[in-house]
Amino acid sequence: MDFLEKLSRRVEEVDSLLCVGLDIDEDKMPGFLFESTSDPYLEFNRSIVDATSDLVCAYKMNLAFYESLGEKGLMLLKRTVRYIPRDIVVILDGKRNDIGNTARMYAKALFEEIGGDAVTLNPYLGLDGIKPFLMYPGKCSFILCRTSNPSAGELQDLLVDGRPLYHHVAEKILEWNKIGLCGAVVGATYPMELKEIREILGEDIPLLIPGIGKQGGDIEATVKYGTNSKGEKAIINSSRGIIFAGSGEDYAEKSREAAVKLRDMINLYRREKKG
Amino acid sequence: MDFLEKLSRRVEEVDSLLCVGLDIDEDKMPGFLFESTSDPYLEFNRSIVDATSDLVCAYKMNLAFYESLGEKGLMLLKRTVRYIPRDIVVILDGKRNDIGNTARMYAKALFEEIGGDAVTLNPYLGLDGIKPFLMYPGKCSFILCRTSNPSAGELQDLLVDGRPLYHHVAEKILEWNKIGLCGAVVGATYPMELKEIREILGEDIPLLIPGIGKQGGDIEATVKYGTNSKGEKAIINSSRGIIFAGSGEDYAEKSREAAVKLRDMINLYRREKKG
Repeated sequence: MDFLEKLSRRVEEVDSLLCVGLDIDEDKMPGFLFESTSDPYLEFNRSIVDATSDLVCAYKMNLAFYESLGEKGLMLLKRTVRYIPRDIVVILDGKRNDIGNTARMYAKALFEEIGGDAVTLNPYLGLDGIKPFLMYPGKCSFILCRTSNPSAGELQDLLVDGRPLYHHVAEKILEWNKIGLCGAVVGATYPMELKEIREILGEDIPLLIPGIGKQGGDIEATVKYGTNSKGEKAIINSSRGIIFAGSGEDYAEKSREAAVKLRDMINLYRREKKG
Repeated sequence: MDFLEKLSRRVEEVDSLLCVGLDIDEDKMPGFLFESTSDPYLEFNRSIVDATSDLVCAYKMNLAFYESLGEKGLMLLKRTVRYIPRDIVVILDGKRNDIGNTARMYAKALFEEIGGDAVTLNPYLGLDGIKPFLMYPGKCSFILCRTSNPSAGELQDLLVDGRPLYHHVAEKILEWNKIGLCGAVVGATYPMELKEIREILGEDIPLLIPGIGKQGGDIEATVKYGTNSKGEKAIINSSRGIIFAGSGEDYAEKSREAAVKLRDMINLYRREKKG
């Protein structure tokens, strides 16, 4: 099944644009797991998935957190991907970028070895670094456009022909989308930029929107500007705000509460938007 | 020992700016290794290191090739790094980039878990994504400036205030270098851009220059424009042109021949430059 079809079906089925970021971090995880469990990370991810899977359209794993654990992190990543129900979208957030010969190896690693439905990519090298990913039918490549971090504007806001660089990247995404399915990564922390990018990309291109929650992105503005006219085609990610909502024995319940709350707020603004 | 000191000592000791890229690729490696050896990749890397270590200042591993092999690739990467003599610079080429909280995890993975002397990073997210790497004393972060691939110019050449984006990135590198040691990645395939970037960066900032060999970069221009006035502070990388120079039982000798030839050509032009 094609990525957009899988996403649409799931969004409709669970009525949710929420994506939970499974960004494991020993320092923020419930301490008791490390005393009582032989594989605390897998236990943690499984509990979070069990507690939230009926509330989400997608899970996102930022590869950095897994890579920092070495070989066992890679195994954990694969086991987590396998544990996620097949009708939920899996996004591997690695922001990869390389020359063509090498990008091909990254595409193989992420789509074949680990088995994601979508990846995140950095556009700085141009189409060469993107194309090998676009060659995988049914998969989606989310290209960094305007990121959520404080120094995002340092390069991304530089003016080219009177318009910020991220506008030009958005136009590249439209162009690359003719070769294979593309989406855009736009931070919730910058609502006006989100609005501009949605206008450039039109109705059909999906946005992956991190920056809600701990990073401070506003939910109302995110839904208003990030979704299309039907209140769709946006995947709104929260990681730390959900998975680290609790730190006691009831951490999974707490994560569920946080996920319900966020999903409902998103849906409230979706209803308002659709009128 | 600080990265620049380690590099300078090694360059002086072996009189070489050559970096060999250990980019393993089953399709291009000698086929007999896969029939006769229990761990063909490690065997291959060890043989190449044995055959070339007295000729190089650095080895570079592009992480994509290792990641495409899954857990065993990560183990292979670590074992290869451990096998490389300690006075040779090890560059982990992963072109990482992420928000601060996450970049910290990548820095941990690359500097602590794998143990490189230097990394490559993508500048699109600005300083947030770079800073956690700069906090590791003695290590070096090579920032992508003008890459070697055909579509490099798609974003990198866009004009900002009448000057291409990669000029602005070079200026960022100068600025970030005040926080922690930075270098720049500039492709040998674009000699004029190399010249401009060396002029912006001055005498002291090291350049990592891929694109020699299979990618077609010109050696004379690379040395002329990429090194500083003393014919130093450049690390000139060749991967496929050296490690896949032979495909028979004598593949390691062939790689040595290719490495000797390239080192000598680089040195010829270094002597010319120094006059």
